[in-house]
Amino acid sequence: MTDFNVSCPIPISDYPTVMLAHGGGGRLMHSLITKMFTSAFENYLLSEQHDGAVFPVRAGRMAFTTDSYVVHPWSFPGGDIGTLAINGTVNDLAMCGARPLYLSAGFILEEGLPMETLWQIVQSMRTTAIQANIQIVTGDTKVVDRGKGDGIYINTAGVGVIEHELRIAPSTVAIGDAMIVNGDLGRHGMAIMMAREGLSFESEIESDCAPLNADVLRLIDAGIDIHCLRDLTRGGLASALVEIAQTAQLHLQINESAIPVREDVRGACEILGLDPMYVANEGRMIVFVPQEQAARTVALLGDSARVIGQVQNHQSRGQVTLRSLIGATRIVDMISGEQLPRIC
Amino acid sequence: MTDFNVSCPIPISDYPTVMLAHGGGGRLMHSLITKMFTSAFENYLLSEQHDGAVFPVRAGRMAFTTDSYVVHPWSFPGGDIGTLAINGTVNDLAMCGARPLYLSAGFILEEGLPMETLWQIVQSMRTTAIQANIQIVTGDTKVVDRGKGDGIYINTAGVGVIEHELRIAPSTVAIGDAMIVNGDLGRHGMAIMMAREGLSFESEIESDCAPLNADVLRLIDAGIDIHCLRDLTRGGLASALVEIAQTAQLHLQINESAIPVREDVRGACEILGLDPMYVANEGRMIVFVPQEQAARTVALLGDSARVIGQVQNHQSRGQVTLRSLIGATRIVDMISGEQLPRIC
Repeated sequence: MTDFNVSCPIPISDYPTVMLAHGGGGRLMHSLITKMFTSAFENYLLSEQHDGAVFPVRAGRMAFTTDSYVVHPWSFPGGDIGTLAINGTVNDLAMCGARPLYLSAGFILEEGLPMETLWQIVQSMRTTAIQANIQIVTGDTKVVDRGKGDGIYINTAGVGVIEHELRIAPSTVAIGDAMIVNGDLGRHGMAIMMAREGLSFESEIESDCAPLNADVLRLIDAGIDIHCLRDLTRGGLASALVEIAQTAQLHLQINESAIPVREDVRGACEILGLDPMYVANEGRMIVFVPQEQAARTVALLGDSARVIGQVQNHQSRGQVTLRSLIGATRIVDMISGEQLPRIC
Repeated sequence: MTDFNVSCPIPISDYPTVMLAHGGGGRLMHSLITKMFTSAFENYLLSEQHDGAVFPVRAGRMAFTTDSYVVHPWSFPGGDIGTLAINGTVNDLAMCGARPLYLSAGFILEEGLPMETLWQIVQSMRTTAIQANIQIVTGDTKVVDRGKGDGIYINTAGVGVIEHELRIAPSTVAIGDAMIVNGDLGRHGMAIMMAREGLSFESEIESDCAPLNADVLRLIDAGIDIHCLRDLTRGGLASALVEIAQTAQLHLQINESAIPVREDVRGACEILGLDPMYVANEGRMIVFVPQEQAARTVALLGDSARVIGQVQNHQSRGQVTLRSLIGATRIVDMISGEQLPRIC
């Protein structure tokens, strides 16, 4: 990759904000794409400037996924909408057990978005894509009139290759499996909440936003028989577990005392009346593995990983139960909507 | 495919409009996805309800592309945003010479969107996907607060396989190549314009929105050595040609008299001061083929196809020129923005 110029490549004096014409298919759009997107995301496939990217594949299995990002505000401690747009889709591919290869990027810009804001987001995408070892190879830019958007929405879709024989899916989960989270919960949602409401506590809560592909591939390379993976985004740990329990028709039991939540996050949740089990994360996942591989899995995932429960041989299938700190057991349900809108 | 129930699967009496909670990761979102999207787009991969779709591939080349759709109004004569969201991305894959396989669908819904509207759009997507012979295998739903969107925006990304050895790209275009359009120009843009402004002429102008994959594959199967393909969307024929001329560094000459434009479209353009060469189409493409294959290509594309010009051996490379009806020659340029915003 050649040297990268960090000043905004569109002259701000001429175009301080995004205009409708930047999405119009003419010279201005062409200039935005070539000067900003193609140069920041520099790679051979993108530079072809065709209607799509063409690449060679080997025989095997591939994964394909998409997410749109509408987070508000667009910037928060620990990341921004650009960081999210890369990590979120990379993580969806990782949850399929795939090695992420290529991303598409679709921008829906609101007329009047400061050009410097767009440039900052594009730079975040560039940096995060390099960290996650993925290339942005095709894209699209639309501009909507003022008042018909919220600055910027981004969609990314991703393709990846599956280089193993595991079948990672809820239907593979088995009685006795250990459930492991790779770190403390609730930080992304609380970071957004604090940024949105202008709240501050003694310490700043930073989003946990991070790519998970390296962690997943490390487990696979080490021979861990992963049964299921799910990232703990909208709806948090609770919603992910309920979905898996219902799809697999198994009973999942977790221990409240084992669920890692940082003290400042727990405190902020208490003040705002939120339950960390339902708060969104962007760098956290639940991993289902055979019980006998649990300790090795935790060791491979690092110091912050914890076994939080086990798949039970229990009559009430399709349910999740929580053993509380005082030993009582209660059913964990999906909430109807969510605690916080526009978290990702 | 099983029988398909055409009444809205979400009870309108309970949920007359989309609510923020429909994007919240909880029960309401789960219900929207399973009852509306998964049932309408029914296929094996989607029903797995994983973070992504996993499918087998053979060794070879693949194409990957994306487009967001923000068309206003969402419905127009000849189609709606759902029709566009399928055909637009299918056509981008077709322009790479690929056989479209799978689509992703990312919905950005505005709080308050009538549930019936969403259902009508989802049905259009279903019908169009069947026509285009493509499956929607993965998706995402976000809901933004009232006033932060415009009813509905859709992103689709697509993957396809390339089952031939042709290299379809501007760099393959050669001096002497014939340029062929597959039908009359300007209908999509004018259909949107009339719908937006509430105008009506004697006859209704219907969008040309259509999938192009079958046409492209027919040419390839017949052994036509396609050099380049480009669909004539935003910016119309003129912008597509200028882009190709600049990328290929060749001189393209077209004949005004050969460019097919329907009389009612020409009349509407004249009244509104628009040039049909710059108006968007959604089922039209320009095909570059060796001169000696031009007649066969036209025959394979059908009655509406026309040879509109030829790649010239001319000093001024990277330019497009138009020979007018009276024999004068002028340079065709990209317009700065576009004639009509939010056309797709």
